[in-house]
Amino acid sequence: MTIQRFGTTQRYSDAVVHQGTAYIVEVPSNPDEDITAQTKNLLDSTERLLKQAGSDKTRLLQVTLYLADMNDYDAMNAVWDNWLVAGTAPVRACVQARLANPKYKIEIVLVAAV
Amino acid sequence: MTIQRFGTTQRYSDAVVHQGTAYIVEVPSNPDEDITAQTKNLLDSTERLLKQAGSDKTRLLQVTLYLADMNDYDAMNAVWDNWLVAGTAPVRACVQARLANPKYKIEIVLVAAV
Amino acid sequence: MTIQRFGTTQRYSDAVVHQGTAYIVEVPSNPDEDITAQTKNLLDSTERLLKQAGSDKTRLLQVTLYLADMNDYDAMNAVWDNWLVAGTAPVRACVQARLANPKYKIEIVLVAAV
Repeated sequence: MTIQRFGTTQRYSDAVVHQGTAYIVEVPSNPDEDITAQTKNLLDSTERLLKQAGSDKTRLLQVTLYLADMNDYDAMNAVWDNWLVAGTAPVRACVQARLANPKYKIEIVLVAAV
Repeated sequence: MTIQRFGTTQRYSDAVVHQGTAYIVEVPSNPDEDITAQTKNLLDSTERLLKQAGSDKTRLLQVTLYLADMNDYDAMNAVWDNWLVAGTAPVRACVQARLANPKYKIEIVLVAAV
Repeated sequence: MTIQRFGTTQRYSDAVVHQGTAYIVEVPSNPDEDITAQTKNLLDSTERLLKQAGSDKTRLLQVTLYLADMNDYDAMNAVWDNWLVAGTAPVRACVQARLANPKYKIEIVLVAAV
């Protein structure tokens, strides 16, 4: 089976598609802003990556959200709950973890159906 | 391909099935109890979700276990090792992470074959 | 569909294959060495597991890297970037987390195409 890759560097790809399943990892591109702005930015770019991969946000299967600070949980969820289309929520784990860039407040890992 | 969802709220689903693969995330429903009780509770409800999704605990592929405190590792494993059917163990990562509810001692993410 | 398992113990398998997708979790077998040596060891054994599972390092889909100390990020990446074959990078998340063995500096979770 063919593997399709998007945004590929020597270290990582932004999205990879195989056998009808898309894998995406995204970080915010506005790391100086607050959790609300970073989450909006992250979900916006995730949406673009999903489209590029032939999927969309109504076809999410599994999501892992890493928060640099669990105190941001409610603010993140306010953006998340509003972003998701009713009836299409994926399974979701959300845990606190130190991220590679100390300014990142959130990082997302997604598996979606193409 | 159709996506099947179980226990869907605005924020997350308990289980999602796509193309013969089931994705599940579960937390304990007895957060005031100790690690042994929380792990038993978690694996019991996981087993129900697996059945609902058309799978069972002998068809696990990949598991991530988040422990709020790695000192609970041995107590968690005692329950886990006893729960698994010999010869059917999935790949498994177990790391410490702060969880959304400070009373949760464990959270599980599973991928299983339907 | 058949599930193939490799290196199966009562607690975990080293690799599981289902429907053209391989799942692998690996830890270093040289936990007394530094991050560079542990990462090399980890990626070497990952490569062996991938072959055993009918895949190889050019067919990675999704990777999660757990570092016990994010200060090891650059040293880990030096090994990672050199190990990957240009143009084949998977999506990749890298977060800090306390690992089961306090001597482990890195743990890897992979999904690969068979």
